[in-house]
Amino acid sequence: MGEVSHDKREDCCSPTRINIQEQQPTTDMQQQHHHHCMEIPMGMELHKVVAPPYRSTFHKLLAKLKETFFPDDPFYQFKGQPPKKKWILGAQYVFPILEWGPNYSFKLLKSDIVSGVTIASLAIPQGISYAKLANLPPIVGLYSSFVPPLLYAILGSSKDLAVGPVSIASLIMGSMLMQEVSPTKEPDLFLQLAFTSTFFSGILQASLGLLRLGFIIDFLSKATLIGFMAGAAVIVSLQQLKSLLGITHFTKKMAIIPVLSSVFHERKEWSWQTILMGVCFLVLLLIARHVSIKKPKLFWVSAGAPLVSVIISTVIVFAFKADRHGISVIGELQKGLNPPSWNVLVFHGSHLALAIKTGIVTGIIALTEGIAVGRTFANIREYRVDGNKEMIAIGIMNVVGSTTSCYITTGSFSRSAVNHNAGAKTAMSNIVMSLTVMVTLLFLMPLFHYTPNVILGAIIVTAVVGLIDVPAAYHIWKIDKYDFLVLICAFLGVIFLSVQQGLAIAVGISVFKVLLQVTRPRTVVLGNIPGTEVFRDLHQYKESAVSVPGFLIILIEAAINFANTTYLNERILRWIEEEGDGNKVSNIRFVVIDMSAVSTIDTTGITLFTDIRKSIRKKGIKLVLVNPLAEVMDKMQKVNDGDEEFMLYLSVGEAVASLSMGMKNSNMYNEEMQVHDVP
Amino acid sequence: MGEVSHDKREDCCSPTRINIQEQQPTTDMQQQHHHHCMEIPMGMELHKVVAPPYRSTFHKLLAKLKETFFPDDPFYQFKGQPPKKKWILGAQYVFPILEWGPNYSFKLLKSDIVSGVTIASLAIPQGISYAKLANLPPIVGLYSSFVPPLLYAILGSSKDLAVGPVSIASLIMGSMLMQEVSPTKEPDLFLQLAFTSTFFSGILQASLGLLRLGFIIDFLSKATLIGFMAGAAVIVSLQQLKSLLGITHFTKKMAIIPVLSSVFHERKEWSWQTILMGVCFLVLLLIARHVSIKKPKLFWVSAGAPLVSVIISTVIVFAFKADRHGISVIGELQKGLNPPSWNVLVFHGSHLALAIKTGIVTGIIALTEGIAVGRTFANIREYRVDGNKEMIAIGIMNVVGSTTSCYITTGSFSRSAVNHNAGAKTAMSNIVMSLTVMVTLLFLMPLFHYTPNVILGAIIVTAVVGLIDVPAAYHIWKIDKYDFLVLICAFLGVIFLSVQQGLAIAVGISVFKVLLQVTRPRTVVLGNIPGTEVFRDLHQYKESAVSVPGFLIILIEAAINFANTTYLNERILRWIEEEGDGNKVSNIRFVVIDMSAVSTIDTTGITLFTDIRKSIRKKGIKLVLVNPLAEVMDKMQKVNDGDEEFMLYLSVGEAVASLSMGMKNSNMYNEEMQVHDVP
Repeated sequence: MGEVSHDKREDCCSPTRINIQEQQPTTDMQQQHHHHCMEIPMGMELHKVVAPPYRSTFHKLLAKLKETFFPDDPFYQFKGQPPKKKWILGAQYVFPILEWGPNYSFKLLKSDIVSGVTIASLAIPQGISYAKLANLPPIVGLYSSFVPPLLYAILGSSKDLAVGPVSIASLIMGSMLMQEVSPTKEPDLFLQLAFTSTFFSGILQASLGLLRLGFIIDFLSKATLIGFMAGAAVIVSLQQLKSLLGITHFTKKMAIIPVLSSVFHERKEWSWQTILMGVCFLVLLLIARHVSIKKPKLFWVSAGAPLVSVIISTVIVFAFKADRHGISVIGELQKGLNPPSWNVLVFHGSHLALAIKTGIVTGIIALTEGIAVGRTFANIREYRVDGNKEMIAIGIMNVVGSTTSCYITTGSFSRSAVNHNAGAKTAMSNIVMSLTVMVTLLFLMPLFHYTPNVILGAIIVTAVVGLIDVPAAYHIWKIDKYDFLVLICAFLGVIFLSVQQGLAIAVGISVFKVLLQVTRPRTVVLGNIPGTEVFRDLHQYKESAVSVPGFLIILIEAAINFANTTYLNERILRWIEEEGDGNKVSNIRFVVIDMSAVSTIDTTGITLFTDIRKSIRKKGIKLVLVNPLAEVMDKMQKVNDGDEEFMLYLSVGEAVASLSMGMKNSNMYNEEMQVHDVP
Repeated sequence: MGEVSHDKREDCCSPTRINIQEQQPTTDMQQQHHHHCMEIPMGMELHKVVAPPYRSTFHKLLAKLKETFFPDDPFYQFKGQPPKKKWILGAQYVFPILEWGPNYSFKLLKSDIVSGVTIASLAIPQGISYAKLANLPPIVGLYSSFVPPLLYAILGSSKDLAVGPVSIASLIMGSMLMQEVSPTKEPDLFLQLAFTSTFFSGILQASLGLLRLGFIIDFLSKATLIGFMAGAAVIVSLQQLKSLLGITHFTKKMAIIPVLSSVFHERKEWSWQTILMGVCFLVLLLIARHVSIKKPKLFWVSAGAPLVSVIISTVIVFAFKADRHGISVIGELQKGLNPPSWNVLVFHGSHLALAIKTGIVTGIIALTEGIAVGRTFANIREYRVDGNKEMIAIGIMNVVGSTTSCYITTGSFSRSAVNHNAGAKTAMSNIVMSLTVMVTLLFLMPLFHYTPNVILGAIIVTAVVGLIDVPAAYHIWKIDKYDFLVLICAFLGVIFLSVQQGLAIAVGISVFKVLLQVTRPRTVVLGNIPGTEVFRDLHQYKESAVSVPGFLIILIEAAINFANTTYLNERILRWIEEEGDGNKVSNIRFVVIDMSAVSTIDTTGITLFTDIRKSIRKKGIKLVLVNPLAEVMDKMQKVNDGDEEFMLYLSVGEAVASLSMGMKNSNMYNEEMQVHDVP
């Protein structure tokens, strides 16, 4: 099985001879070679198709596993280094802070302090708001903006990521847990379950990274994410109608229809004071956002606006005693740093399954957002983040977070953008932010007593508006209609069914598309570009490629497997039928299948060629295979169907040249056209 | 968007000039073309990469739908025919009997009578046995061998298929229905549910055919089927231990462990008379089977053996009154043809879901067997069966069958093989068989009164032994280890869990493999075969291909989509890193990506090339794309990233030739080579 033929090249054929080698599948996994040599007048050389060098099954498996799980080859940098250096590199690999820490300078610190304080001013109001979105006490949002950023600064490899609670993960966690436990009736249990599901999220995230299964998040395609995010933004905004309109009896459902019907059903609860305040600050915040988008240098306008709004609105409420006139406020908040929570995690009982399920869904969503944000900014600043390493960092951050009263956190797109625009240089800005939040937690909490809930709603709406990306959706519509369908399904699924179902539907459709592509691979008929040995799609190169008389050259553009063997068989026979139809009846002598694009083949697929050969033999047509790739060649060698060998050529050009030579030499077929009639 | 460039070919470039065309993605979906012409000394011509001719979105969708659902183009034969001929062809398409009927001759009839009677002699004992396997009254097996073959003869397009009950579908139907309804306590309900699920099977099968979704059964790969069949054969054989050992209290479970423990637990029920008789006839039947395998001309030995065994054993039991000595017999059987059963179908109540589920599973399994058998013999005799048409035929046959007291039927492998060997020429042999069964039903039923159950068990075991195909399993092991894993999972899943779970696991693993291939497409580095313009895998053609200095040529061997964009990005960057390592630091000037095998691309994938270009630009490396195919070209045109254009070439040979020309000519930038430096 290992005795491949490339070591026999010096045999009978000189450069002025044609060497037609037919690879014969034989019993006992050995090979025989037939060299038919004939002199041709133009100094052309035919090249052999060879199998790849022998590797044992074990080595092949090893190589495949490496390609599957270590495509980025993380150990590459260790190769050939002295042991001490290896230790240092290893420590730097696990703790990226050791990479940038030693060279940290005062100049960098200055930038990081500016950006850190800026994102803190955004993180504090957003943290409080997102915690409310998840039906958790507001202070949990601040806890979650304190511990996780510190951990990420040590473990994370992105220089721009601003870590903390995010809107979509908060929404999903809140809505999923609410299915079984009421956040108002059993607030303690609800909080415990939130920490527990955060714990499971972290375990899942870190495991995906450790097991190098990060590619699972790749199944959330761009189209899926855009549709999903837009849908989630709509759902989140609708939820804010509760605080924006001052409604007290609000539905617990998330989908658009029950929420809107609840809103209009409770019209008498609407409070004009709340609505007035809400509309004013919402307009203010949206204008600030718009300014920062138009002029990125004015990033601080939108970054500071939420905190400013909180301060102004709190002062207004306090000054006018507005909380006694229908404007609901946050109320008493406790002071102090994160209390431990490892003792309240729930690992038994009837809600465990829910906690695990919530952990999985929010974990994957949070991971997707964090990795995507990290990659986006790494791309802009031209450094690389290691996806699997980031997963481990985010996972550990959430596991530790869940034991210190934090709920699910990840890299936030809006705050990371501000961080980047504010000139953050390293993960130190996360530490600065964390310390600012710490100061707030220790000393400033009582100031939030009179902060009206309506402001939090306005802040959330402003934050999620940016998730609705119409230009990107239009871009997808332009390029790929099927992707747009995926997007729309994700969007409609989220707003009419539920966040999880919308996501599941979109992923299902995406995967279905991939499977459909696998089931129905493209086959094209090739023609020669005159004057070259290049063969290209006759349809695409309508004006430059011409078909070669006597030959039907078909390119199969996909791996051949059980799911498409039958289709390919039918499709190729149809090409032959259509070609041999009309005037040119039985003009074809050779069906040449270009296998350059067939990357792999399985046991079902391997029967395709014998089946086709059988079908066309009675029409007097011969089957020629061109350029089978390493793995295919390897497998074809191992098949013995007791039949004659396949005609193999290295390139379509060589196949056509040598076979039309043969056609010319034989004077039996007079009516057939000849190609390369060299004088 | 439609103004593609192939109509501008007559412009500036003569054959002795290079025409480097850069396809520019622009706004407003228009195109600009830059033609840089430069003289080069060797009469070489560069060719343009063009987009495919314009087609509207609607036409593209139409073409795609046609490729997906009508790959065999069933309307092809109607094209250009006169209306009357079209009617005849249409009728022949729906009723294939009209195709062969008019030319039917006495000579063909003689062959068909021989084969029809032969398969009837096999179908009668097998029908009775398989009905017992499905926990149905034996006579239902004969009913099912009467009506469906008649229908198939009219509708089916296979000339060899022998239609009737089959072992695996019977087993699955029996075991699935038994989960909710006991065949001994509620025999009437059980029978009703069997007919109902047969009805749903038929509806499903016909719908799959009508909706042209036949490719769904392709997802049962060869490996899955071999493992599944072998597992089912073991399960079926184990079930026969009940009748072979004469046990009366037998477990209702199917998996190997409960069955074996039940068998040994009930040792005191074993009846030596039954065992003796069973062993004798089992040996006889297996010898007969062996003889027919060794000498296919003696097909009638194995074909006749079951009936002979039934007759002999019945006579023995009758003569020795063995039924009073522990040998259980079939007992009273009613006479007469199929009674109607449309009035007993159950379309409501608590068991409806079970009936539908059973119908789907048995329907798909039956369809898979029927189509596979049909294709196998069509291949041998070199005619074609239309998969979707066969599905409609089998589906109608089951729907009608379910209203005439028949349970699920399909093409049986063993009886079709006998039919083929006995020289069946047309579907007329099914009619002959059906008529023979009719005679039996009308007149011979009382003769089966004393037929011992142990003989039926022996007949089933002999029939299913052939489903265990060890050579095929070994063949798969040789070719593809992963496929073998699928096979083993299917086998173990069936024997240890259940038939449905085993099947589901195997299909799941098969699909996972396909998805893994999509997620981790192969990329190979190409080298030039000296003296040609052919570029091939440097690893496979270790001894003949050489890498081109200054170039890294990468072939991507799969469609690019959301699931693999990240991987490809990382993998290609790693190729560049590895290549640029060691002594050859920054030797690479151009990364040439051969896109000949990228059949399609989606909105996520389209970002790959801009991302890669960005990543390598700082190293002074340029990205060159070669031969983007029609669809890819189409989409790349629609993307405007406001960035510079891509360098496009028609073939790797032309790219390398023209770019290395540029490298030589440039004397301005010594360390960073330039391309389009026209002197």
